[in-house]
Amino acid sequence: MKLTILGCHSATPTAATNPTSQVLEVRGHLFMIDCGEGTQVALRKNRVKFARIKHIFISHLHGDHFFGLIGMISTFCLLGRDAPLTIYGPKGIKEIILLQLKLTGSYTPFELRFRESDATTPELLYEDEKVIVTTIPLDHRVYTRGFLIQEKGYQRKLNVVACEEYGVDIAYYRKIKKGEDVTLDDGRVIANHELSDDPQPSRSYAFCSDTAYKPDIVPLVKNATVLYHESTFLKSHEHLCVKTKHSTAAQAATIAREAQVGTLILGHYSTRYGDYELFRKEAQEVFDKVELARDGAVFEI
Amino acid sequence: MKLTILGCHSATPTAATNPTSQVLEVRGHLFMIDCGEGTQVALRKNRVKFARIKHIFISHLHGDHFFGLIGMISTFCLLGRDAPLTIYGPKGIKEIILLQLKLTGSYTPFELRFRESDATTPELLYEDEKVIVTTIPLDHRVYTRGFLIQEKGYQRKLNVVACEEYGVDIAYYRKIKKGEDVTLDDGRVIANHELSDDPQPSRSYAFCSDTAYKPDIVPLVKNATVLYHESTFLKSHEHLCVKTKHSTAAQAATIAREAQVGTLILGHYSTRYGDYELFRKEAQEVFDKVELARDGAVFEI
Repeated sequence: MKLTILGCHSATPTAATNPTSQVLEVRGHLFMIDCGEGTQVALRKNRVKFARIKHIFISHLHGDHFFGLIGMISTFCLLGRDAPLTIYGPKGIKEIILLQLKLTGSYTPFELRFRESDATTPELLYEDEKVIVTTIPLDHRVYTRGFLIQEKGYQRKLNVVACEEYGVDIAYYRKIKKGEDVTLDDGRVIANHELSDDPQPSRSYAFCSDTAYKPDIVPLVKNATVLYHESTFLKSHEHLCVKTKHSTAAQAATIAREAQVGTLILGHYSTRYGDYELFRKEAQEVFDKVELARDGAVFEI
Repeated sequence: MKLTILGCHSATPTAATNPTSQVLEVRGHLFMIDCGEGTQVALRKNRVKFARIKHIFISHLHGDHFFGLIGMISTFCLLGRDAPLTIYGPKGIKEIILLQLKLTGSYTPFELRFRESDATTPELLYEDEKVIVTTIPLDHRVYTRGFLIQEKGYQRKLNVVACEEYGVDIAYYRKIKKGEDVTLDDGRVIANHELSDDPQPSRSYAFCSDTAYKPDIVPLVKNATVLYHESTFLKSHEHLCVKTKHSTAAQAATIAREAQVGTLILGHYSTRYGDYELFRKEAQEVFDKVELARDGAVFEI
């Protein structure tokens, strides 16, 4: 998995800070999560190929998470895109996009699909043989959900030397990689673990923004390889978290610690803070493995 | 008048080019014309005070002319603006903005007024004692109009020395500046031109984008101090002008020459061209006084 942060700041875009958007490369997909104003320019700066984006997941209908969507779709039209595009968003996103396409006299030369929802329990959004995307209900001023993107189990690694020693026919290899035992012609049953090794572990990425401190998401993001959790404020502004339904760096770290995730990435900073290292410092008092999102940063997961 | 170009490129924003938006400072007003994606960032870069913008004129509903509007309004909300804001746009702009405000759970702490129209003849949009704004019907793929912003006549300049020599009472000064003659106590009538000098000439700014070549706008922009006319393409791509209803630099210059304007500013360049001096060169074969718009450029009118 490769995560590229296109923007990780809250509220309004500035010359130096982009609102939320990121792309996750996973098993051949390039999933976009959120699309604040200026995202299409950030894609160009980060040399992300527009045509590779086929699924866009919108967390909630606050402008800093979706105002860039209509502009990006319009650019897709101008570029003559033909690959289908699916937008997973809260109820209302379809009306917003289609109204603007209608009034601008535009049509999409590609298939534009919408998958809207307002479910407050975890929901399956996307699944194929390699990846599964589910929602993480969050607690914000409008309906908001995060996303858990999980690789499906890799196949077991074939032990070719052992297979040849036992004289296993090559026709069985596919079944062995799936974990099956093998019965030889002479009737002997060879256990799978003698013919294959454990697969590489599957990775998972949990995106949680925007949200008040919500401990009941811990089971949903348990053992995630990487958790991106918003930290709009520092503890010194905890009263603003209560008022605006955001989290502090310490609260994000508490979720990470309780869920025993691999790494915590902090983001969605209020632009009132000049020094983002303060977020890392506050979080590391609770949980050690903390990274700071930065516009343009790339994380290998 | 002071014109600041926030963006002057067509179609999609890039890292180096902004779509259309500009602000015109005139007699205490700061009028915004068009508002493509990224305009609020361009305002910050150009150090324009957000609160001074009270009137926004939208030429047409193509994304590169209004996709930045909802983000800018949202930022006005976050900044706690209280000054009223009036948006003059084609029919539909109100529905687009209000739908997004509703679905984002936002309310404007200031009065947000809309003045929509679809008139295909010149129309008065704004008038006070110093300025008048009217529309210039254009010819594009969707309903489009430009804007003519004219200063109203300045008052005559009082000739204080002459007034004192004639013994004119100070109480008459206001009337003299308005052009009235004065009757002295002894019955003599003093002609106004003996007591005052001609006022400074009024200036006007005509904005024409986007449009196909449309010679019938010439009487509407006649003698404008400055004409901004789109030149999306060069003559070598004139076939694209026909197809997309845009103009070449030569066509823009022809309008400028026929209307005998003071200066022509070219803009709305297709990003296919690397060297914008080609536009100036092409236009100057028709009309001498040509300037090129650039993002961030400021023109004193």
